[in-house]
Amino acid sequence: MTETVHNWEDHGYLATYIQKNGSFANLRIYPHGLVLVDLQSYNDQTKGKEETDRLLDKVEEKMKELFHGNIKRVKRLPAILRGGAIDRYWPTADGRLVEYDIDEVVYDEDSPFQNIKILHSKQFGNILILSGDVNLAESDLAYTQAIMGSGKENYAGKEVLILGGGDGGILYEIVKLKPKMVTMVEIDQMVIDGCKKYMRKTCGDVLDNLKGECYQVLIEDCIPVLKRYAKEGRMFDYVINDLTAVPISTSPEEDSTWEFLRLILDLSMKVLKQDGKYFTQGNCINLTDALTLYEEQLSRLYCPVEFSKEIVCVPSYMELWVFYTIWKK
Amino acid sequence: MTETVHNWEDHGYLATYIQKNGSFANLRIYPHGLVLVDLQSYNDQTKGKEETDRLLDKVEEKMKELFHGNIKRVKRLPAILRGGAIDRYWPTADGRLVEYDIDEVVYDEDSPFQNIKILHSKQFGNILILSGDVNLAESDLAYTQAIMGSGKENYAGKEVLILGGGDGGILYEIVKLKPKMVTMVEIDQMVIDGCKKYMRKTCGDVLDNLKGECYQVLIEDCIPVLKRYAKEGRMFDYVINDLTAVPISTSPEEDSTWEFLRLILDLSMKVLKQDGKYFTQGNCINLTDALTLYEEQLSRLYCPVEFSKEIVCVPSYMELWVFYTIWKK
Repeated sequence: MTETVHNWEDHGYLATYIQKNGSFANLRIYPHGLVLVDLQSYNDQTKGKEETDRLLDKVEEKMKELFHGNIKRVKRLPAILRGGAIDRYWPTADGRLVEYDIDEVVYDEDSPFQNIKILHSKQFGNILILSGDVNLAESDLAYTQAIMGSGKENYAGKEVLILGGGDGGILYEIVKLKPKMVTMVEIDQMVIDGCKKYMRKTCGDVLDNLKGECYQVLIEDCIPVLKRYAKEGRMFDYVINDLTAVPISTSPEEDSTWEFLRLILDLSMKVLKQDGKYFTQGNCINLTDALTLYEEQLSRLYCPVEFSKEIVCVPSYMELWVFYTIWKK
Repeated sequence: MTETVHNWEDHGYLATYIQKNGSFANLRIYPHGLVLVDLQSYNDQTKGKEETDRLLDKVEEKMKELFHGNIKRVKRLPAILRGGAIDRYWPTADGRLVEYDIDEVVYDEDSPFQNIKILHSKQFGNILILSGDVNLAESDLAYTQAIMGSGKENYAGKEVLILGGGDGGILYEIVKLKPKMVTMVEIDQMVIDGCKKYMRKTCGDVLDNLKGECYQVLIEDCIPVLKRYAKEGRMFDYVINDLTAVPISTSPEEDSTWEFLRLILDLSMKVLKQDGKYFTQGNCINLTDALTLYEEQLSRLYCPVEFSKEIVCVPSYMELWVFYTIWKK
């Protein structure tokens, strides 16, 4: 083992230990008594884990001996696995590091619009991840129920418009409730193709055909569709916005994301019946600034609206999520 | 900046860059093309973050330039914060690294039985952590409802025994349902003291007095209490085991954890009416071996029992949790 030592005048000490097999360790001692030990090795995950644990046990034991047990706190964190085929780290919307129990890359393709990943989690089932954002897992019926109004709505005989929703979850659940007609407008055919194959616990068989008895799926940018419907005077009982947090458009006409979000809202209100309801996901509960900004947009629509919000635990998100219900005054 | 370089014959390259302010970086290049950059600095969390992000942006840009954009994958993980007063990392039961949005240490004491922490999470409210295990957060009514039978039981006029449950959540919810009498047996007075002060969203005012109209709290080891009740022939409609995963006892009479768990189960069955129900938490859904072992214990009790299980999403756990219902055949 090679040892390299660096001593700062005022900042303590760093020792680097290098092993012949390519592993190395950093021992960083800060003057106020904080000791950080980092080990990096490249090897088989499970084999390496035991060896590393034994080594760290020894280090811990030795440190306790040297300090006569006079150590205030010891914390050992699980190893971070990097560089493998499987990426287990999908930070939350509020930027926290969380490790998922991903054990398989089921689907990984770039569409013209985004990167589409479907990863298998032992506990959540398959998870749809769009351009790095965890969208929905097969465990997440709670998301679909929340964005449909938490079981308080009667969809029977109703006209429903879904914006986005390519995983098919909302469509699948609403079709069960005997609506008059559901129109879903999803821009990305490849999301539908991936989900109808690998997210069947979410979408059932509803994506196998783009047309059913009481539904149709349009593979289109929702903005021109909304404009067309508004012009035709077509109206819906429910509009459900299930677009990605920053929606994709083939022709964004507005400069900022907020203006774009407001355009979608305005157009949606134009096709929403006076007693209709608009449902959408907001954001994680910790992003209070983003939520406030969103609510400000609601006061700037062409027509006055009111809203309520609900906080829901979506299993695969690992953070609480805010859902909005919006209606015309 | 000081640079130290190590070249392995077969394992690539490690460069360590040391800054005058006490920060350092490791650049580890593996022969198959994996490049890992780790930065460690000691400074104010928010100030350091921006500076670090700028630096990593530059490194990323430079790398892309050098490789003519020919990079397969780039991933930057949120910084790990160590050594501060607030510890944000409480790994899941299945050993995954998860970061909580902890912003305050509300309570941190060692009782004669365990370390008791109550930490504040922005989204989950106060979280009770016993000897490093996340027990319950104020957001976790789902846990309490699950261990009470998920709303399918009628507690009115019933005799209920709670083992553990020091956070007061179960007691608080059952007392609302007009039971005949609830007896809660909690070994650790300090858990009750901490929770009645800092987990009021969970326990309401129920822990303010150890005796109420229809409940009593005994500060005792549950094993002798169960033995006493069994001897007296006292019977309950419901026994709810809310002890920690590895229960604490003042006088463990059995050698292994499993034998100890079986002792509790056997004694509980002795005080459970023939048509009564026993509820308990199991474990995280991924620990299949532990769950199987638990279920094996159930076939080895003094009386034959049947069981069902339910998988529940408890918000602060960040993993799905299994709950058991057990009844006499």
